[in-house]
Amino acid sequence: MKGSESVLSTAAAAGMRVCFANPGTTEMALVEAFDATTGIRPVLALAEGVVTGAADGYTRMAGVPALTLLHLGPGFANGIANLHNARRGRTPLVNLIGEHASWHQAADAPLASDIDSLAAPVSGWVGRTTSAARAAEEFAAARQAALRDRMPATLICAADHMWSDGGVEAAVPEPPAPPAVAPERIEEVAKLLAGAARPALLLGGDALDGEGLRTAARIAAAVGAEVFAERSPARLERGPDIPAVRSVPYFPEDVLDALDGFSDLVLVGTGTPVAFFGYQGLPSFPVPDGTAVHPLADKGDDVRGALRALAEAAGAAATAPTAPPRPGPTAPSGALNASAVAAAIALTQPDGAIVVNEGVSSGGAYPAAATGAPAHTELTLTGGAIGSGMPMATGAAIACPDRAVIGFQADGSAAYTAQALWTQAREELDVTTVICANQRYRILEAELRRAGVDEPGPGATSMTRLAGPVLDWTAIARGFGVPGVRVSTGEELLDALRRAHADPGPHLIEAVL
Amino acid sequence: MKGSESVLSTAAAAGMRVCFANPGTTEMALVEAFDATTGIRPVLALAEGVVTGAADGYTRMAGVPALTLLHLGPGFANGIANLHNARRGRTPLVNLIGEHASWHQAADAPLASDIDSLAAPVSGWVGRTTSAARAAEEFAAARQAALRDRMPATLICAADHMWSDGGVEAAVPEPPAPPAVAPERIEEVAKLLAGAARPALLLGGDALDGEGLRTAARIAAAVGAEVFAERSPARLERGPDIPAVRSVPYFPEDVLDALDGFSDLVLVGTGTPVAFFGYQGLPSFPVPDGTAVHPLADKGDDVRGALRALAEAAGAAATAPTAPPRPGPTAPSGALNASAVAAAIALTQPDGAIVVNEGVSSGGAYPAAATGAPAHTELTLTGGAIGSGMPMATGAAIACPDRAVIGFQADGSAAYTAQALWTQAREELDVTTVICANQRYRILEAELRRAGVDEPGPGATSMTRLAGPVLDWTAIARGFGVPGVRVSTGEELLDALRRAHADPGPHLIEAVL
Repeated sequence: MKGSESVLSTAAAAGMRVCFANPGTTEMALVEAFDATTGIRPVLALAEGVVTGAADGYTRMAGVPALTLLHLGPGFANGIANLHNARRGRTPLVNLIGEHASWHQAADAPLASDIDSLAAPVSGWVGRTTSAARAAEEFAAARQAALRDRMPATLICAADHMWSDGGVEAAVPEPPAPPAVAPERIEEVAKLLAGAARPALLLGGDALDGEGLRTAARIAAAVGAEVFAERSPARLERGPDIPAVRSVPYFPEDVLDALDGFSDLVLVGTGTPVAFFGYQGLPSFPVPDGTAVHPLADKGDDVRGALRALAEAAGAAATAPTAPPRPGPTAPSGALNASAVAAAIALTQPDGAIVVNEGVSSGGAYPAAATGAPAHTELTLTGGAIGSGMPMATGAAIACPDRAVIGFQADGSAAYTAQALWTQAREELDVTTVICANQRYRILEAELRRAGVDEPGPGATSMTRLAGPVLDWTAIARGFGVPGVRVSTGEELLDALRRAHADPGPHLIEAVL
Repeated sequence: MKGSESVLSTAAAAGMRVCFANPGTTEMALVEAFDATTGIRPVLALAEGVVTGAADGYTRMAGVPALTLLHLGPGFANGIANLHNARRGRTPLVNLIGEHASWHQAADAPLASDIDSLAAPVSGWVGRTTSAARAAEEFAAARQAALRDRMPATLICAADHMWSDGGVEAAVPEPPAPPAVAPERIEEVAKLLAGAARPALLLGGDALDGEGLRTAARIAAAVGAEVFAERSPARLERGPDIPAVRSVPYFPEDVLDALDGFSDLVLVGTGTPVAFFGYQGLPSFPVPDGTAVHPLADKGDDVRGALRALAEAAGAAATAPTAPPRPGPTAPSGALNASAVAAAIALTQPDGAIVVNEGVSSGGAYPAAATGAPAHTELTLTGGAIGSGMPMATGAAIACPDRAVIGFQADGSAAYTAQALWTQAREELDVTTVICANQRYRILEAELRRAGVDEPGPGATSMTRLAGPVLDWTAIARGFGVPGVRVSTGEELLDALRRAHADPGPHLIEAVL
């Protein structure tokens, strides 16, 4: 078999199922191999930011790594921003990047570039194929590294290693188990929690699923702690059976306020809160002076196991305390704002929905509205590289064809990767995207005010306004093959959402704020 | 003044005029400085590939470097593909990349990444600011490096160095003169041309302007040589007063055919022809065995000076031989194909137009049609990273507001950076984009056939077809604020082009092939 066939066969044998792709000439042998092998479904995207963001969303939801297939350095580069988010979210996916034939690389052809230098910042592991015979083995190493590091791994595949015969399917090692937290550390933390004046748990990563949140609630009840969720988690579960959790705020002064008065902060599957940006007079790590920070488990550790062990050591009850029923939000009426959009989504979302929140300045409204919503999973912007939401929604819908996917989407961010709509249409995905069309980069207006610019001049204003012309999202959606509708009141939005959910398939709703 | 103001003031004093931008929080001080200083016009784009491609197109046409302003590693990464094209085209532009405040960098905030590693592959020079006081000086060094290396230069600007007071406008050195070719080398080449059995000149870079092409024609007439232009030049001039020139073909076997029988090939402003991709059984450098290659001037040398000196040494006549009048193409009629689109553009283009050719599989038809067109400049895809055409057209139109800009645009490539249309609308640019809508990556179908796949399976077919759904380019254009029309015959296309040229401003014509 060809080297390319050995790679895809090995991937399929390892349980991988989907390859998000935007291939070119150097990837033709891998493209052929989609037909010569079975088990890997290729999904085309019109732009590489969609490829990598979809792979991130797929992997977060599917629990098995996605493949990406990208074209040399420049094609890969277009996908870096969403791989940055995947790296921050600890998503294990595997990038296959086509490279010139090994004997052609020295010629410095127009598309040649230093792919390794581009790949390193967003990859836990970067390697190159060395022959058709070894390509599958090298692929297995990439997959193993991705699962071990919980990060994207990148294999650069020379075209001749892919097109040549002599490929050999490789053995696929079991994914390594995440490191367990030492029992001594569990005991230490249990002891300090028992003696702490006013402790809090800060959960991240795997701790934010239903089991993790219930376990944390048991611990909290036992020791009198409050529970926080990290800012921008890769994946957070909510539902009637899952204890609600406060999120760490965005701006550092708000983080300091939220943590004010806590004697101790135990980190479970996350790090010390860090300011998203550095601001004059505010610290990089916004933790009050009086709050001692205690790491229990890193994001890559066996976080759920650590929580279970801590619950036992802390003498927690076997079940989480019963939470009072949480009312849903009030139905929005009249002119829209971010809270109204969040309420409308929460009120209409089907049971088991996946909500991809890239609302940026509007997205913060969703968690409050969602506490009364049916069980759902929220995916957020882990690395701050905007243009992630619509691609992630695409990948999540492919991972979970039986669940409705809803995009809570800022307009500025949507404009980076609107091409995702085409893949949603082509693959007939059940994704409803709600664009919060405030026609500006509102977060930048806020940042200008923070910097003391209350009345921006024409230059600064032109950098924050998405007007002149206003984007027509219904036309953009139609252009990419997705039906779109524009709404400007709560009533219209509720109606549009109900219609969209009643008709599975891609929809776009432009909510004019 | 703030560090940011010192940088922009220094840029303006150096004659720079435009900054293409997609800023974020770390760039707020530079955004403010657009208003606090004078001389630099900020131009917003919705996606960074538009920013960098526009900067490339602007710089190719304006003759002074553009600035870009990009947001940290991920924002920069989105612009890498078009910077790859700029590097290959030897375009001297200056990237300003915002970075976290110096004291916040160690915190590894979510948007932190290794910007240097991302920037190096597409930059001749990468540096970082060290303080507000030195930022302008460091900027001047970046600009100087860009002009010296004829490549993008990248300055990573820490937010606190930009927002802090203490900035000092820096002296701007004269751009360095390109190195002159040694007189001895000129004499050697003149001698070998005089004695060569069947010589050819291969021109690239600066040799492809009117003066260069006329000088080359004088030399060719004197020594009995043929003149070729490099494949994919950054900028090529055509017109009634400019001798026509053959382009080096795309596929290596066609290059071997084109060069067959030439005894000597003199390189002026370009390198030995290189195969765009490596193919089994074909060489990386497709030059026939019997053809001796003689470098005269590198792309960064004083190429025009070398040509003038060679003309003198070769005893060339003072004026280029009179070329026979070249008839324009026949007006296309009925169903469209690539040649019909090329003919329609050539027949209707205003005098002095700038034609940005990213037609990919269709674009090869333009040069033949254009030989009879009014004087114009053609910009091409120098580095093979598609998604360059619409951004370049945007930048070229800002550089040359009095010239009509025409995009000869493949649909697959257009889909990467369609967001450029919004900037064309916002800046009211006179750009007419003709989308060759063949609804496939036709170049990849050709590559599959070359690889021996005559009947691709469903997987491979799904990777090359842009169907299911077909893109509606008129809707996409409308969504971004540009009027669009769909045509499917030569008559309709001619009519649409004439209407577009009669109404300066952005237009999109979807030509269904």
